[in-house]
Amino acid sequence: MKDLKLDDIRNQLIRQEETLIFSLIERAQFKFNEPIYLDAEIPIPGFEGCFCDYLLYETEKVHAKVRRYTSPDEEPFFTDLPDIVLPAVAYNVPLIPNAINVNADIMALYKDQILKQICQPGDCGNYGSSATCDVICLQALSKRIHYGKFVAEAKFQADEETYTALINARDAKGIEECLINKAVEAKVLARVESKATTYGQEPGEENPEFKVNPQAIAQIYEDYIIPLTIKVEVDYLLQRLDS
Amino acid sequence: MKDLKLDDIRNQLIRQEETLIFSLIERAQFKFNEPIYLDAEIPIPGFEGCFCDYLLYETEKVHAKVRRYTSPDEEPFFTDLPDIVLPAVAYNVPLIPNAINVNADIMALYKDQILKQICQPGDCGNYGSSATCDVICLQALSKRIHYGKFVAEAKFQADEETYTALINARDAKGIEECLINKAVEAKVLARVESKATTYGQEPGEENPEFKVNPQAIAQIYEDYIIPLTIKVEVDYLLQRLDS
Repeated sequence: MKDLKLDDIRNQLIRQEETLIFSLIERAQFKFNEPIYLDAEIPIPGFEGCFCDYLLYETEKVHAKVRRYTSPDEEPFFTDLPDIVLPAVAYNVPLIPNAINVNADIMALYKDQILKQICQPGDCGNYGSSATCDVICLQALSKRIHYGKFVAEAKFQADEETYTALINARDAKGIEECLINKAVEAKVLARVESKATTYGQEPGEENPEFKVNPQAIAQIYEDYIIPLTIKVEVDYLLQRLDS
Repeated sequence: MKDLKLDDIRNQLIRQEETLIFSLIERAQFKFNEPIYLDAEIPIPGFEGCFCDYLLYETEKVHAKVRRYTSPDEEPFFTDLPDIVLPAVAYNVPLIPNAINVNADIMALYKDQILKQICQPGDCGNYGSSATCDVICLQALSKRIHYGKFVAEAKFQADEETYTALINARDAKGIEECLINKAVEAKVLARVESKATTYGQEPGEENPEFKVNPQAIAQIYEDYIIPLTIKVEVDYLLQRLDS
């Protein structure tokens, strides 16, 4: 297994902040548009779920064919996906084999909480555009949060002794305490708010109106993204010595 | 036909600058990755073109089903697309019926020029991620450029007499001269460069390394986006009195 450097992973996570903030700002152009999240509200022949789920599922089918979910840093939201049509890639995967996938949690938080914090309430009728943005937001959130597997592996490699003892004791709480670094978290939150401030305004305006409240984006990190990432890290470490 | 206000359209175009700049910055994370633009270089069963085209085509098939191309401000790159699966929307289309579609030009400029101006040369192997970004860039470019139809209709409504005379004389050059406003263009280019400067750097860094050279993005506007938009406007006006 390849050695993982925590610094490389942090740089990846920092770059993913842009992707995530850009995608949330894009979604916030449109109102909440509730009908796209209500099952069967927009009737789709042969599909029982909501319009947002349908567009995500159809997109995942396309991306599955071009190998997206064979990559160790991608997890699909749907399970019933077609086989790849391209030759397989031999990844040098720096993780233990695992089936950790918290996308159901991500989807629930996105629809119930995150959207309401970034979008204006109401209905602007731009259902297709909104759902297209949703797909990009959900994929960015999923990638960011499942990157916790790499963080966990790097932290394990950096301190095998401590983690091995905790894992063997099945001490999830102890693992979590070991993983959490409040100083790093505070830096992430400050950086995210600063980026959201910069990217969410028109340059040169004197009293900029933010496209999304920058504190709301930092809050989404604090309340959902970081805790779910920690959950992925703990789940991964609990399985770390199984194989 | 609905009255079009040039100010509303300009605000739409200004908002689309973000979408476009964000999407180009996202693509620039990855190197040029030439194999995804070479026909048959990556073998795809049942598809003759390049990998980028395949992903775009498959994505357009999904979006066609959810009505994307029934919207008056969307034009597909491919013609052989499935029918909509949702009930049709009755748009109050403020344009004359037209079949103007410059996506072939956009695709050629994107692959031959724009990518080389925003991406580092070479191959980083992230083919799927790069092509996913390409799809978003191409869709954003296409929407922005075809918005010229709305600009042209608004300008026509604002000065029917002048344009009617030029259209009846089939004076494409005269129409173009009437449409071009160098002062507005200069403002667009300055604003785009300012946005690209703001969005393309990490906030708080002393000597920021830009993710994409901001002048390159302004240059893409000047060399490709604005001229193609003018082409759409002229083409639209030449057909304006046909129906």
